[in-house]
Amino acid sequence: MEKWRAADRLLKFSSRFASAVNWNNSCKSKQGKYFYSVATTVHRNPLFSSISPDDISYFKTILGERGVVQDALALDAANTDWMGKYRGSSKLLLQPKNTEEVSQILKYCNSRCLAVVPQGGNTGLVGGSVPVFDEVIINVGLMRNILSFDKVIVSGVLVCEAGCILENLISFLDDEGFIMPLDLGAKGSCQIGGNVSTNAGGLRLLRYGSLHGSVLGLEAVLANGTVLDMLGTLRKDNTGYDLKHLFIGSEGSLGIVTKVSILTPPKLSSVNIAFLACEDYTSCQKLLLEAKKKLGGILSAFEFLDSDAMSLVLKHLDGVRNPLPPSIHNFYILIETTGSNETFDKENLEAFLLHSVESGLVANGVLAQDINQASSFWHIREGLPEALMKAGAVYKYDLSLPLEKMYDLVEEMRVQIGPAAKVVAYGHLGDGNLHLNISAPAYDDNILAKIEPFVYEWTSKNRGSISAEHGLGLMKAAKIHYSKSPETVQVMASIKKLLDPNGILNPYKVLPSSLFSQN
Amino acid sequence: MEKWRAADRLLKFSSRFASAVNWNNSCKSKQGKYFYSVATTVHRNPLFSSISPDDISYFKTILGERGVVQDALALDAANTDWMGKYRGSSKLLLQPKNTEEVSQILKYCNSRCLAVVPQGGNTGLVGGSVPVFDEVIINVGLMRNILSFDKVIVSGVLVCEAGCILENLISFLDDEGFIMPLDLGAKGSCQIGGNVSTNAGGLRLLRYGSLHGSVLGLEAVLANGTVLDMLGTLRKDNTGYDLKHLFIGSEGSLGIVTKVSILTPPKLSSVNIAFLACEDYTSCQKLLLEAKKKLGGILSAFEFLDSDAMSLVLKHLDGVRNPLPPSIHNFYILIETTGSNETFDKENLEAFLLHSVESGLVANGVLAQDINQASSFWHIREGLPEALMKAGAVYKYDLSLPLEKMYDLVEEMRVQIGPAAKVVAYGHLGDGNLHLNISAPAYDDNILAKIEPFVYEWTSKNRGSISAEHGLGLMKAAKIHYSKSPETVQVMASIKKLLDPNGILNPYKVLPSSLFSQN
Repeated sequence: MEKWRAADRLLKFSSRFASAVNWNNSCKSKQGKYFYSVATTVHRNPLFSSISPDDISYFKTILGERGVVQDALALDAANTDWMGKYRGSSKLLLQPKNTEEVSQILKYCNSRCLAVVPQGGNTGLVGGSVPVFDEVIINVGLMRNILSFDKVIVSGVLVCEAGCILENLISFLDDEGFIMPLDLGAKGSCQIGGNVSTNAGGLRLLRYGSLHGSVLGLEAVLANGTVLDMLGTLRKDNTGYDLKHLFIGSEGSLGIVTKVSILTPPKLSSVNIAFLACEDYTSCQKLLLEAKKKLGGILSAFEFLDSDAMSLVLKHLDGVRNPLPPSIHNFYILIETTGSNETFDKENLEAFLLHSVESGLVANGVLAQDINQASSFWHIREGLPEALMKAGAVYKYDLSLPLEKMYDLVEEMRVQIGPAAKVVAYGHLGDGNLHLNISAPAYDDNILAKIEPFVYEWTSKNRGSISAEHGLGLMKAAKIHYSKSPETVQVMASIKKLLDPNGILNPYKVLPSSLFSQN
Repeated sequence: MEKWRAADRLLKFSSRFASAVNWNNSCKSKQGKYFYSVATTVHRNPLFSSISPDDISYFKTILGERGVVQDALALDAANTDWMGKYRGSSKLLLQPKNTEEVSQILKYCNSRCLAVVPQGGNTGLVGGSVPVFDEVIINVGLMRNILSFDKVIVSGVLVCEAGCILENLISFLDDEGFIMPLDLGAKGSCQIGGNVSTNAGGLRLLRYGSLHGSVLGLEAVLANGTVLDMLGTLRKDNTGYDLKHLFIGSEGSLGIVTKVSILTPPKLSSVNIAFLACEDYTSCQKLLLEAKKKLGGILSAFEFLDSDAMSLVLKHLDGVRNPLPPSIHNFYILIETTGSNETFDKENLEAFLLHSVESGLVANGVLAQDINQASSFWHIREGLPEALMKAGAVYKYDLSLPLEKMYDLVEEMRVQIGPAAKVVAYGHLGDGNLHLNISAPAYDDNILAKIEPFVYEWTSKNRGSISAEHGLGLMKAAKIHYSKSPETVQVMASIKKLLDPNGILNPYKVLPSSLFSQN
C-alpha cells in the first residue's frame, strides 16, 4: 500500500512542477523579444476571408455570448504559445461545448473560407497551436467530460472529450486503480485532444508504446463539419482502413479531435527508481539492452542526461544535488521499473544493478530508498527544461536517431558550435529520442546559422527524424523533406486536399505551404 | 537456459501443427464443394481489361520467363484460398523479386486497367488473398530477404522484405535472442507483408499490442507504381501524417507492401503456463482483471474456451486429454506469463493461482510442470480450428465485443440456432476477441439464415467489430456498415479513389463494390 501512495505523491509532485515551468511569466516576457518571424517564410493565404460582424453574429447564435471571445487579454493569451516564441493576431476565440457546436463552426468557416486553428492546452513547442495570422481560434477546453470508464467489468477503456486535461484524467484513473498510458511534463495544462492530435510521446512510451497503439477510437470533425464517429472501444477491429491514425499526429490539420477512447493500463503497486552513472555512451547503450533483457516487462523508463545537462541542473535549480557525488560523470541514466510485486521487483532491479556494476557498464549508482529520493531523481531529469530557460536563450531540437549514432551528433555539434554556446543533451534513450539543446547567453543568428541546417542535414543523413515527439507545427513544416520522401509528402498533401479542400484547418503548419499555393 | 530451449520447442511444435492444419488436403477437397458464390453479390467490373498476349510478353520482359506463371496447377493453387472456400479464375500469376519489379508491374497494370490481387502466404480466412474473377495475382513470396537487424547496438529493429515467412523470421530472431511481436497458427505459411496488410492479431497481441504499434516503417507501392518509402526504423517519428497506418490492415487495396521495419522484443528466459477452469463467465472476466493487475508486465496470453469447445477437442484430436479431469467445466482459461526471472515469475504465478482458487474465481487449475505439459495445454487451444474442421461444416466468425457482453452472444446464438448445430466459443479473451464457430454436420442455408444477419446485427448493436483480426476481404466487404459509420466508410472510399483511381488493387474486397460502381 505504501507504494501506491508513493506513486501518487510522485505524480502530484511532478504535476506541480510542470505548472511552474510551463507558465512562468518571467520566461514568457524574456522570450517575448524573440517572436518567430513568419513574414519571410510564410504569407497569409489571400483566399482566406477575414472575420466580419456577420460572422460574429452567426457564431453567437451557435455558441451564445460566452462562447465567442473577443476580449483583448484573452485573445493575447490564446494567440501566444507558452514559450512566447510564436504569436498570431487572431481577433476571435471560439469555445464550443460539444461536438455539434464544433461541427457547426467548421461547416460555417468552411463555407466562408475562414481559416481556423484548433487549440487545446496550448503547450506545444513548435508553434502548432497558435494562429500564424488571423485564423479563428477554436479552443476545445470546455469539452472536458469523462464519458465512460468501464471499471466494473474490466478492460480499462476510458472515453472522454478532447478538452480533458491530462492531469485530471490521471487523477480520475488513479482513484479507479488505473493509469494513463502517457505522461508528460505539461500534464497540468495539456489536453488529451491535443495529446492525440500531436501524437505526444513522453515518459511512459517505452513501456506502453505510442498513442497509435493505445488510442482505441476517436471522434473527429472534418473541415466541412462532417462528424467522423470512429469512437470504438475495442482492442481489435479490422473492418476497413483504420482512419483514426490519420488524426493521431496530424496536428489538427485534417480534422478536430472531439472525443477520445483510450486503453489505460492497471496501476501497478511497485515502483522502483535507480540513478546511475556511465563513463561512455557505448555503456549507456549496452545498459539499455541489458535492462530490456533482464528487467523485461517491468522496465518503465530509461532516461539519460549528459554531464553538461547535469551541471546545468545543479547550477540553476534550487536544492538539487548530484545523487552520485563527488565528481561529475560523463552520463547519467534514470531507470524506473513498475511491476506488481514489491519484493521481487526490487530484488530484480538490485541484482541487475549489481551485475551492471560488476561488469563495468555502470560506474556508480544508487537505488531510491524512499519516495523523496525517487522524486529528487525524477526532478533532475524533468527539471532540465526549466534549468535551460534559466540559463538564457535555448535552441531546442527533438530528434529521433538510430541509437548507435545519437551521441555522435552531440559531439559533432559541439565542434560545430565552438565556445559560443553549450550543447546539452538528454532524453528518452529507451525510445531513441534525443532532446538536443543549444544553450547560449542570448539568441544570436550566428549561432542559429551554425545549428541549422546542420542539425537537420545530419539527422536526415542518418535516417533520423527531425521531430520525434513534438510535431512539425509552424517551426518545421517546410523542413519535412529532411525526414520524409517527396512521394510520401505528396501523398500527405493529397490527403490534406481531399479532407480539407479549402485548407482552412491549421494552415501553414505540418506541410510546406508551397505545396498548396502552387495550385 | 532450460526455459529458452523450452520456448524454442514450443514454437517448433506449434509451427508443425499449423502446417498440418492449414494445408490439409482432405479438408480442402471437402470444403471445395462449398465455394463462395460471388455471382449474386459482386459483378466483374467491366472497366477492367482482360489479359492479352501482349501483356504476357511485357511481363516477361520485366520478370523473365520464371516470374510469369501460367501453369494450370500453380494457378489453381493460387486461385484457391486455404479453406477451399473462395476460388478465382485468374490466368496469370506474377512473381516479382524486388520492389522495382512490383512497381513496374503495377504501373503497367494501372495503365492497362488490369485488376490485380496481391498475395502472400494465402492463409487468410475472408477471401481477401485470392482473385474473385480474373485478376492478375501478384505473389511477393520471392521477396524474402532479411535486410537488416541491429543486433550489435541494441534496439531489435528488423527490416525485411514482404515475402518473408513469419516462422523464418521467428527462427532468425530466436538465434539473435529476440522474438517477433506477433505469432499466429499459420506462421509456417503466412508472410510478413500479408500479416501487415491484414493487421494480423494472434497470440501475442495482449502483451505486445497490434501491428499499428510494432511496425515502425513500411515500403509500399501504389497502384500507379509510385514507391512510398516509409521504411523508418525509429521508435518515434512525428513528421507529418503517419501514412504507414493506411497500409496496415487495408488488405492490399491501397498499395502493395514490399518491405517492413518492425520492432522486436528481446526473448525472455522464463515462460510459465497455467490451465484453469471457471464455472461462469463473470469469473473469467474477473480473473482477467486480476491477472492484469497481479501479473502486470509478465502476462503474455489469456485465452479461453468453453465446455463445447473442450468437448470438441477431446472428441476429434488424437491424444488430447482434459488437464483437469474428471468432469467438464463450463470455461477453461490458458494463462501464459513470459518474464526474465524464472524463480520470481513462477512464484508470482503460483501465488496468483492460489489466491484465485481461494477467492472462488477459479474452480480448478494446474501449472505446467514441464515443456511437454505446456505444449499439451497450448495444443488444446490451438487445436480448435482442426477439431472444428474434423467435426464437419463450420461457420466461422471473428468478433470483437465489449468483454461483458461477449458471452451473451454465444448464449443467444445457441437459442437462435437450436439443436441443428453446435455453437462453439473460444478466443483471445485478453483482447476481447471471440472466435464464434457454428459447427454443423453439413453446410445448410437454413442454418446460415439463422446465423446471418443475426450475428452481425447483434455485434453492431453492442458496438462490436464484425472482424476483430481476420479483416473484411470478400466475405464481409458489403457488411462494413455493421461496424463503421456511413461517413467513415465514405472517407475510406474517397481515400481508395485517391490512391487507386482505377480501382485495380484487390477489387471487390474491403469496401462495398456499390460505392464505386455508382460513379
